[in-house]
Amino acid sequence: MQLIDGKAVAAQIKSEIAAEVKGIMAGGGKRPHLVAILVGHDGGSETYVANKVKACEECGFKSTLIRYEADITEEQLLAKVDELNNDADVDGFIVQLPLPKHIDEQKVTEAIDYRKDVDGFHPVNVGRLSIGLPCFLSATPNGIMELLRRYNIDTKGKKCVVLGRSNIVGKPMASLMMQKSLPGDATVTVCHSHTQNITEECLQADIIIAALGQPHFLKAEMVKEGAVVIDVGTTRVPDATRKSGFRLCGDVDFENVAPKCSFITPVPGGVGPMTIVSLMKNTLLAGKHEIYK
Amino acid sequence: MQLIDGKAVAAQIKSEIAAEVKGIMAGGGKRPHLVAILVGHDGGSETYVANKVKACEECGFKSTLIRYEADITEEQLLAKVDELNNDADVDGFIVQLPLPKHIDEQKVTEAIDYRKDVDGFHPVNVGRLSIGLPCFLSATPNGIMELLRRYNIDTKGKKCVVLGRSNIVGKPMASLMMQKSLPGDATVTVCHSHTQNITEECLQADIIIAALGQPHFLKAEMVKEGAVVIDVGTTRVPDATRKSGFRLCGDVDFENVAPKCSFITPVPGGVGPMTIVSLMKNTLLAGKHEIYK
Repeated sequence: MQLIDGKAVAAQIKSEIAAEVKGIMAGGGKRPHLVAILVGHDGGSETYVANKVKACEECGFKSTLIRYEADITEEQLLAKVDELNNDADVDGFIVQLPLPKHIDEQKVTEAIDYRKDVDGFHPVNVGRLSIGLPCFLSATPNGIMELLRRYNIDTKGKKCVVLGRSNIVGKPMASLMMQKSLPGDATVTVCHSHTQNITEECLQADIIIAALGQPHFLKAEMVKEGAVVIDVGTTRVPDATRKSGFRLCGDVDFENVAPKCSFITPVPGGVGPMTIVSLMKNTLLAGKHEIYK
Repeated sequence: MQLIDGKAVAAQIKSEIAAEVKGIMAGGGKRPHLVAILVGHDGGSETYVANKVKACEECGFKSTLIRYEADITEEQLLAKVDELNNDADVDGFIVQLPLPKHIDEQKVTEAIDYRKDVDGFHPVNVGRLSIGLPCFLSATPNGIMELLRRYNIDTKGKKCVVLGRSNIVGKPMASLMMQKSLPGDATVTVCHSHTQNITEECLQADIIIAALGQPHFLKAEMVKEGAVVIDVGTTRVPDATRKSGFRLCGDVDFENVAPKCSFITPVPGGVGPMTIVSLMKNTLLAGKHEIYK
C-alpha cells in the first residue's frame, strides 16, 4: 500500500508555480491576483479562505480578502461581483460558499465573468469541462487528476466508481475520468443515495473516488484487493481531545481500508491540499490569459 | 416485450405543440421561428434538415432554410450566425453538422447566442444541463427522457449503461439519467472503446442506451432478461434492395435482442423522430422565452 501524499505534491506544485511567477515578474509581467469574498463567519469557510490566502503567498500571487457580514444583501454582493468583473487588476476571484440563505448562490455564481471564474463553477466552465475544452477546471476533481498523474496511476480502461453526484465533485470527476485523455479513459460509474447494491458496485472498482460527505462510509468489505481509493470527504466530527474541538473525517474507513489498497489518500493531507493548489493553478492560468484572452 | 413507438409519441407531442402554438397565435403572440443553416450536400444532413423543416410545419412554426455551398468561408458563416443572433424575428437556429473541414465546428457552435441555441450544444447549455438548471437540452438525450417518461419506465435506482461518450449523446445522457429527477436517479455507467468486459457491464444493466454508432453492436448475450434497450444508432448501411441504396441500421441486433427486453426502441421509428421533436420543444421554449428572457 502506498500513501498518496497530497500535502507533498501540493507543496511541489506551489513551488513550481512560484518559480513561474518569478519568471513572469522578471520579464516585466503582472503578478497574478486572486480576490476572495467571504460572507459571514462560517468556521469551515474561514479556514478554507485563510488557507487560500496563505497559498497565494506561497505562490507569489497578490491576494485580496473581502469580508462581509452575513447581512449583506444579494444586490450589494452582486454589485461587488460586477465591480471585480470589470477590474483589470483582478485576474480571478471566488465567492466562498455556502452563502447566507437570503442570497441565491446560483445567481452569484453565474454573475461572475467566466473568464475570472477560477473556481470553475460557472456554466460555461462546467460545459467546457464536459465537452473536453480548455477551461477553469473544478478544483477538487482537477486536484485528484493531478494526484493520479503524479503517482502514475493507470486509469485507461479501468473501472472507476465515483461515490456522489454533486455539481462540484461527483459530476465533473466522472466527466474527467471518462474523457479521452490520460488520466481518463476509465469506465465510470456514478453511485449515489438511490444506488442499490453499492457494495457490489464498489467491489468491482479499480479506482474508487468517495465524495459523499458521509464519515467512514467506505468499509474494507466494499473494496477489492489492490484498489486505488481517493477520499474527498472532510466532515467535521466533534473531538474533545482537539484544541479546535473537532477533527476532519473522510468518507473512507481508512484504518481498515488502507491495507487492501494499492494507493490511498489520507484525510487530512490527501485531496484537501490539492483542491487549493488547483485554485492556484487556475489563478496562474487566469493571470497568463492562457484559456480566455 | 413492448415496442417503444417513437414515431407515435413524436406525432402526439407535435400535435400538443401545434395546439399550444394555436393558442399563442390566438392570443396575439408571435409564431415561433426556427432557422436551419445547411452547408454543402451531405446526404444525411439533407434528410435531417428536410425532416426538421417538415416538423416545423406540423408544429405550426415558421421555418427558414439557409443553404450554402461547401466552399463558404468560416468568416462568412460566422457573419451569418452573428446576423441571426441579432435578428429578433429568429427565436432559435441550428447549424447542421458536420461542417466542411475548413470550418471550425466548435467555433461556430460557440458563436451561436446560447439563448437561441436550440440544439443545446453551446457550453452554457451543456453546463446548465450538467448542473441541472433549466436550459435547451441536447435533443437526442431529451427525446429519450421523454420516451422513458411517456412509457412510465422506472429509472430510480436502476442500473443504466450508456454505450458511447459523445458530447451530443453519451455524456449528456449520462448526466440526465443520474440527475435528481424522474426519469433519472439511476446508477449510471458510461462505456466506450476502452471499456474492458463490456458484455459484463451490459449484462448488469436494467437500462441500456446504445449510442456507439456501430451497427448491431449489442447482441442478445449482452442483455439480461427484462432489460430496457434504447437504440440511438442510425448508421447508413448499403442496401441494393432499397430505392435510396441504403437502410438505417441501429446499434442493437434488434431481431435477437428484442425477445429478451421489457421495452425496446426500433430503428427507424424509435429515437430518431424524438430527436427532431426535442428540437421542436426547444424552439417552442425559445419562442416563449421561458428559459432565457
